Amino acid sequence: MNDNESVIYDLKQRVAQFADDREWGRFHDLKNLSMALAIEAAELMEHFRWVTNADANALMDDVDASAAIREEAADVLLLLTQFANIAGIDLMVAAEKKLALNERRYPIEKCKGIATKYDKL
Amino acid sequence: MNDNESVIYDLKQRVAQFADDREWGRFHDLKNLSMALAIEAAELMEHFRWVTNADANALMDDVDASAAIREEAADVLLLLTQFANIAGIDLMVAAEKKLALNERRYPIEKCKGIATKYDKL
Amino acid sequence: MNDNESVIYDLKQRVAQFADDREWGRFHDLKNLSMALAIEAAELMEHFRWVTNADANALMDDVDASAAIREEAADVLLLLTQFANIAGIDLMVAAEKKLALNERRYPIEKCKGIATKYDKL
Amino acid sequence: MNDNESVIYDLKQRVAQFADDREWGRFHDLKNLSMALAIEAAELMEHFRWVTNADANALMDDVDASAAIREEAADVLLLLTQFANIAGIDLMVAAEKKLALNERRYPIEKCKGIATKYDKL
Repeated sequence: MNDNESVIYDLKQRVAQFADDREWGRFHDLKNLSMALAIEAAELMEHFRWVTNADANALMDDVDASAAIREEAADVLLLLTQFANIAGIDLMVAAEKKLALNERRYPIEKCKGIATKYDKL
Repeated sequence: MNDNESVIYDLKQRVAQFADDREWGRFHDLKNLSMALAIEAAELMEHFRWVTNADANALMDDVDASAAIREEAADVLLLLTQFANIAGIDLMVAAEKKLALNERRYPIEKCKGIATKYDKL
Repeated sequence: MNDNESVIYDLKQRVAQFADDREWGRFHDLKNLSMALAIEAAELMEHFRWVTNADANALMDDVDASAAIREEAADVLLLLTQFANIAGIDLMVAAEKKLALNERRYPIEKCKGIATKYDKL
Repeated sequence: MNDNESVIYDLKQRVAQFADDREWGRFHDLKNLSMALAIEAAELMEHFRWVTNADANALMDDVDASAAIREEAADVLLLLTQFANIAGIDLMVAAEKKLALNERRYPIEKCKGIATKYDKL
């Protein structure tokens, strides 16, 4: 955990510094950041809109498409990091807690090969 | 960077293991994961839908609301991590590259206090 | 209702014809169309990302912004119409049913000035 | 066009009345409504998240799934209608204009069976 905390701390610091240098604090409340995050997620999804499930992964073999997808995924992480900054959320702790909850919600023997939501299991 | 790589490696491993244990591989192509990520981002945003910018951050002072928000933010990170797993993206490298690009796109002196997109600057 | 049906029929016909002329049928399943609809909704939202609630409506006074917003709103309607085409949904009937349900879920006396979701009322 | 205008006028009136009766005017600025619309679009998409393209349309044969999908599609239309109310957008006029633009952007002979965006054609 110490390593995790320090790494997340690094990224959070750099993202916060980037916003502070530009005096973007007044734009970066949780409402605006949640909107910006959802917009970046939609831009990532856009690459897969008209592609079949079977063909989706092969986009990473295309130089231009994979560079664009990598950039959109980075945007999602950067916005999520700034959201966590302002919200005071430790993302690694939150992710570990949620993984543990998911392990209880989705017992292996009940979920094998089935994508049913936990509240319908 | 070595630390970053190892931490991301840890989280990626655990998320991948979670999916493998449940044989969810056939659901987890990049198309489906990009949809799931966008849905989680929308669920995070839902908490701020009818709240003003001024009141948004104060939701974190509410015990129930902040717990729910923390969980939704974790969901976004978990889905993004699995997306990166399948896409073969190193998220930390991608985020650092994008930050460096943003620093060139948004020069401090031009952007102070202004939220204009780089292509309109 | 007869008028409603005929108008929706007209728009649905034109949107379907547009897709048929281009042989886009194989792209237009409900999964892809629901993705495309969510992406258009995110593009509409993008205009309001860094704007306060108080300033949001004034964007319609700006010639360029209002033209772009009008176009994004149209995209949402066009995609929703094609989704309804393929799903066999009569949008006007569905909207009227949902409005009636909302009237029961949100009794006027309980909801005045309060944006609480029905399941928390 | 006269019929279209009167039908849209009817739906717009009823949706506006619903909000006015509950004094929801202060929540219904364009920023909040664009968020609410994107959230409803994500909820519609949720039904198709883990379903293949090939299986997506068959969800409409399932009584429960199709009822839920119909309701989510209605929510998108209701929110879009209220957005148009506040923005002063005539949705039918905007949709017709956009269809005409799309016809120019996507010439039939160039687009047959190809889902390439107009700016890449």
